[in-house]
Amino acid sequence: MEMPKPDAAVLARKAEIVARLSRALPEDAVISDEAETRAYECDALTAYRCPPLAVVLPSSTDEVATTLRICHEAGVPVVPRGSGTSLAGGALPTADCVILGVARMNRVLETDYDNRFIRVETGRTNLSVTGAVEQDGFFYAPDPSSQLACAIAGNIAMNSGGAHCLKYGVTTNNLMGVTMVLMDGTVVELGGAHLDAGGLDLLGVVCGSEGQLGVVTEATLRILPKPEGARPVLMGFSSNEVAGACVSDIIKAGVLPVAIEFMDRPCIEACEAFAKAGYPMCEALLIVEVEGSEAEIDHQLGLIMEVARRHDPVEMREAKDADEAGRIWLGRKSAFGAMGQINDYMCLDGTIPVSELPRVLKRIGELADEYGLGVANVFHAGDGNMHPLILYNANTPGELEKCEAMGADILRLCVEVGGCLTGEHGVGIEKRDLMADQYAPDDLDLQMAVKDVFDPNWLLNPAKVFPLGASEARRGQKLAAE
Amino acid sequence: MEMPKPDAAVLARKAEIVARLSRALPEDAVISDEAETRAYECDALTAYRCPPLAVVLPSSTDEVATTLRICHEAGVPVVPRGSGTSLAGGALPTADCVILGVARMNRVLETDYDNRFIRVETGRTNLSVTGAVEQDGFFYAPDPSSQLACAIAGNIAMNSGGAHCLKYGVTTNNLMGVTMVLMDGTVVELGGAHLDAGGLDLLGVVCGSEGQLGVVTEATLRILPKPEGARPVLMGFSSNEVAGACVSDIIKAGVLPVAIEFMDRPCIEACEAFAKAGYPMCEALLIVEVEGSEAEIDHQLGLIMEVARRHDPVEMREAKDADEAGRIWLGRKSAFGAMGQINDYMCLDGTIPVSELPRVLKRIGELADEYGLGVANVFHAGDGNMHPLILYNANTPGELEKCEAMGADILRLCVEVGGCLTGEHGVGIEKRDLMADQYAPDDLDLQMAVKDVFDPNWLLNPAKVFPLGASEARRGQKLAAE
Repeated sequence: MEMPKPDAAVLARKAEIVARLSRALPEDAVISDEAETRAYECDALTAYRCPPLAVVLPSSTDEVATTLRICHEAGVPVVPRGSGTSLAGGALPTADCVILGVARMNRVLETDYDNRFIRVETGRTNLSVTGAVEQDGFFYAPDPSSQLACAIAGNIAMNSGGAHCLKYGVTTNNLMGVTMVLMDGTVVELGGAHLDAGGLDLLGVVCGSEGQLGVVTEATLRILPKPEGARPVLMGFSSNEVAGACVSDIIKAGVLPVAIEFMDRPCIEACEAFAKAGYPMCEALLIVEVEGSEAEIDHQLGLIMEVARRHDPVEMREAKDADEAGRIWLGRKSAFGAMGQINDYMCLDGTIPVSELPRVLKRIGELADEYGLGVANVFHAGDGNMHPLILYNANTPGELEKCEAMGADILRLCVEVGGCLTGEHGVGIEKRDLMADQYAPDDLDLQMAVKDVFDPNWLLNPAKVFPLGASEARRGQKLAAE
Repeated sequence: MEMPKPDAAVLARKAEIVARLSRALPEDAVISDEAETRAYECDALTAYRCPPLAVVLPSSTDEVATTLRICHEAGVPVVPRGSGTSLAGGALPTADCVILGVARMNRVLETDYDNRFIRVETGRTNLSVTGAVEQDGFFYAPDPSSQLACAIAGNIAMNSGGAHCLKYGVTTNNLMGVTMVLMDGTVVELGGAHLDAGGLDLLGVVCGSEGQLGVVTEATLRILPKPEGARPVLMGFSSNEVAGACVSDIIKAGVLPVAIEFMDRPCIEACEAFAKAGYPMCEALLIVEVEGSEAEIDHQLGLIMEVARRHDPVEMREAKDADEAGRIWLGRKSAFGAMGQINDYMCLDGTIPVSELPRVLKRIGELADEYGLGVANVFHAGDGNMHPLILYNANTPGELEKCEAMGADILRLCVEVGGCLTGEHGVGIEKRDLMADQYAPDDLDLQMAVKDVFDPNWLLNPAKVFPLGASEARRGQKLAAE
């Protein structure tokens, strides 16, 4: 993938911007040594790398504002970074940028059980938000697979989901307010610890904006009382199509599981070899989990298993205790790691209407044959968020490109059947050039005009989200107009 | 409340704009006769009235685009209108405006049970969306009190809620996509029948934007399978404070009722006199409703009533059958009508953190004494959305102004305790000048800059949402720049 060329003038000014930042910030907040900045040259989409000019690690909203103001004045692009776990290249540097990492800002600022919220600095990891309230019986619902490492800053940037978002919603449904710093250093407050608000809901447009609009430094998050209990059931089916139809029928039956996870045969085999979860060897596996009191769990699982029986499952196993439940989930949760042991892979993130599952799975299989690449499917089936893993060999010249082309075909297929390019990973650099397949020119123009308002010079997280040509043209116009 | 003066030049051009609209649209779509336009001179905030220049009632998105394009070219402001049930003056005309009413656009365009959505034209009423799918066991969740009359267009403009939004969320949580026409006639598509989407989530900022950004003509709405059953319980308490504390404790207990409604003594008395619901005469009443299977309902109500018993209820009555459930709700649902029979009133719509309920109720009582006006409280207590009704006599000179001043004090109190100006009714003209109490200047500027993008000449729904001075200055700047 082609990255924009570093602006020679800015490169020449590296020493100058580093000096200005160092004068204004604590000594240890600015990193410019090449050996150290190298640690920031990529995120979890490791196929793409680019060392930044410098890295700034502020400890407060004020320091974030200072950093942005200085870069704004100097015309230096800034790439915000949480924990760097983006699978879409959302935190990939450009050669002329300063990385602004919020990892040091990880304090809990306020906990309010009466009103069920917690306010944290956004460098805090997802799991440690729950960690701060679980002793009192609460939890933070969105649970991306990377939750041990990923930061709330990145969750907000990408509107992250997770296995349990079928019931609890994704980040946008659990985010109540933010403190955000604009590129020029202005600090704004959006939303708060209350329902709705008057005027324009800018919180909604900030959530999922992939660092295009500002740097979110503090977040007010909804926390929920932990359910009394939860229980998964494992179901094996004779084909992807049958498992897909079963998912549709469960949703239609009016029960709301917290999670419906789907794995196909290549994925089942890899997970079983890796995690020894006791998965049956079949064509497709569902993990369906419900929550509540024992009575509610029994009632809901009863309905779900009645639906499933109509699809002739080859196996159906309710977890008898916490230990068995843990093992059922361990397999699913180690899916990405398990696949990684066997193969290089590219993880896609398209969404489709649930009813299109069988058709889309079939077409993905055909595409794999056409491209001569393997594919394993693992995804949040309840809400149609697919994660096909395309398997390739990074050492075989040309395979990465083939893999990218096949990925683009699959994502175009998602759009074609009425879905979209990204469920929870974001567009980043990975899907920027496919945005024109999703959006009409007028729709994209409107988004870019909103970006103009927040970041008129297009300095924040450049070369991402929007098609490269369009965003470079936009930036060029802005510079020319100055 | 002072309304902006009609622009004399535009008034003089009334004949011209009517002629242009009439040439471009079907004969019966344009209304300019004064006797007929009078029906559009106010919405449900009837204290304010102003006849518009003309009224256009298009039958398609194309006709909406034609109307907007013509008005845009002529510099004529447009006030979009659903059913005109706004309690905040959201559809109040200005003297120089064209009213664009979507009431004729009320068709169901698509119903998809597999993927649980319905696509409708936005003139369709809220209740008739459920009406279109209930024979198949589905419903549309947001349920404003005006649901028999109010249009989806207005629900989207105001991000409407309702008694059951504690469980199901407000409009923004149930809106999947829209077709929207910008002021210059451009038609854009935002969101769709799928999870999330790449790029900036403009759907979120459009929902609740009170007709400031565009005219939404089609909407894709999430529909849900009807729950097996529902059952309310009626609880009477010895004071507002005790009832407020009970609400907090129910929320903290981790059960999620579909509704927690709160009524104070003046409201109970009025409702009982009107609806004969068999309400106990006490200081505060809660209606708590849960949904699910019989077993789930029993389990949840058991927990809730256990919590309530700790607050020494003077009465606690579980509905034994559908008939009794209907009567319990009838009282609550007729609250506004019942109060209206006794008094003129102004209905407020602030939100507060749930834990502040007792303190805020006490302060509202004190304010009522200070102003010498009566107040009745009825609200969605579960999510802190208050609807104090300030009672006054419209025929006593000066009482409306006193009532407005007291309303402003109550809304400022909501902001002060960490809440906001509006839960579900919107800002409209009613609360525009209080927006500066809610938002810092930088926050408001950012909202207005986003408005600039969608409607650069500030022609859509003028003189609302933003403080009058600020929005007139903005419009003036834009006109001067042309």
